[in-house]
Amino acid sequence: MMDKNNYIYGKNSVVEALLQNSKRINKILIAKNTSNDAKINEIIKLAKQNGIVFTFVPKEKFQEFSQYPHQGVLASVSPVEYTDFYDFLSQKSENYKKVIILDGVEDTHNVGAIIRTAACAGYDALILPSRRNAQINSTVEKTSAGAVNHLPIIQVNSLSNVIDKLKDNDYWIIAADAHGKENYFDIDYTNMNFALIMGGEETGVSKNNLKKSDFVVKIPMLRDFNSLNVSNAAAAIIYESVRQMIQSQNHSV
Amino acid sequence: MMDKNNYIYGKNSVVEALLQNSKRINKILIAKNTSNDAKINEIIKLAKQNGIVFTFVPKEKFQEFSQYPHQGVLASVSPVEYTDFYDFLSQKSENYKKVIILDGVEDTHNVGAIIRTAACAGYDALILPSRRNAQINSTVEKTSAGAVNHLPIIQVNSLSNVIDKLKDNDYWIIAADAHGKENYFDIDYTNMNFALIMGGEETGVSKNNLKKSDFVVKIPMLRDFNSLNVSNAAAAIIYESVRQMIQSQNHSV
Repeated sequence: MMDKNNYIYGKNSVVEALLQNSKRINKILIAKNTSNDAKINEIIKLAKQNGIVFTFVPKEKFQEFSQYPHQGVLASVSPVEYTDFYDFLSQKSENYKKVIILDGVEDTHNVGAIIRTAACAGYDALILPSRRNAQINSTVEKTSAGAVNHLPIIQVNSLSNVIDKLKDNDYWIIAADAHGKENYFDIDYTNMNFALIMGGEETGVSKNNLKKSDFVVKIPMLRDFNSLNVSNAAAAIIYESVRQMIQSQNHSV
Repeated sequence: MMDKNNYIYGKNSVVEALLQNSKRINKILIAKNTSNDAKINEIIKLAKQNGIVFTFVPKEKFQEFSQYPHQGVLASVSPVEYTDFYDFLSQKSENYKKVIILDGVEDTHNVGAIIRTAACAGYDALILPSRRNAQINSTVEKTSAGAVNHLPIIQVNSLSNVIDKLKDNDYWIIAADAHGKENYFDIDYTNMNFALIMGGEETGVSKNNLKKSDFVVKIPMLRDFNSLNVSNAAAAIIYESVRQMIQSQNHSV
């Protein structure tokens, strides 16, 4: 469902947003019947320059906005500025870095809840792809209880490339999957940079990303029933890493 | 918001539900202007006999049901049969019993998610009060992914009395509270029957129940920000008890 607070509409407004505020743009939708004029070409050029996804969609998608002068162009915008992945990578830190990656989490309430938990747990960033995952919008902001403003959020076009880059930069990749080999509490989170990948409720972590993972962990089920909600699964694993970190610090004093 | 799937309406239907299906009734609402006839008296008598809460409410509450012949009487019903608290207490078990208690959790999505997590974690029951807490309805059932059918659910009129009874029966009471003394992972969940109390997002565990608790535990916050969503907090604690149980079993082999 489209909420107009999450969109900027009209050719000039979208050009302006691309020039002034590109770090808040999730993606750009262009109606298929829109005439390919100079402004549309400029929008496409700016989107490419800024690595922002643009999609041509059937004009029916624009019906909810018929009362606004959208001119066949919408930019889906985030309430927060995204952090650049390479800026994040280059930031020095005294401690190991902890990142959470969403891979196909489509429910905005779950995305918001995971951001909230990751913020509380002192994680360093959350990474999400610009396709096949819920984007950061006003519902996510609300469900996160404002945590979107406390945790750096990185939107990327290719999770696969980003995972490769993380590995090149001494991050261990941990995927959570129902068919994981080890229980999530049997690995040591304390002595490494790591990125934890949570997959969509129906689809799980994508095969390609599972293959790239150094660990595939599961949450043990003590009743023969289904699985956890993805935000609850994330909470169990994220806070296990917190437990290990706090208890290992106490023991080493 | 009232969803008619969660209600039975009309004097005869409510009497019938009380006689045949009282273990699925959350509470009964009677419009204040309803004439006090024999059927209403029977409803009140049966509700009292079965320990079911009934409330007299302004007739405006019934406006959403104006198209149904409600006759000023509604029974809010659960999609599952509640388990009797004393039946549960008397059931023998080879293992220690693990119970979760909700104390003022008003959001149905959170209630559903907590039930799902408790079911996956092999908990033995969930207890919730018949007032000042979301009741089990079709939204809870859906959010629990059907887990309401896998975990015994106990509805009680007085949490305070139930906590006393649990203590009399060798349960330790653990309350989760932002001002707790100990981190939730610093207590041992493996060698006792216990009941974990989760409070409402705004209100927390009620003072009276905090006082009765043997442990008040907190979830450490690593960023100066707010707190966890209650279902995520529950997931962290519930799965910490699972971790301890599984790891202590492995070590003792």
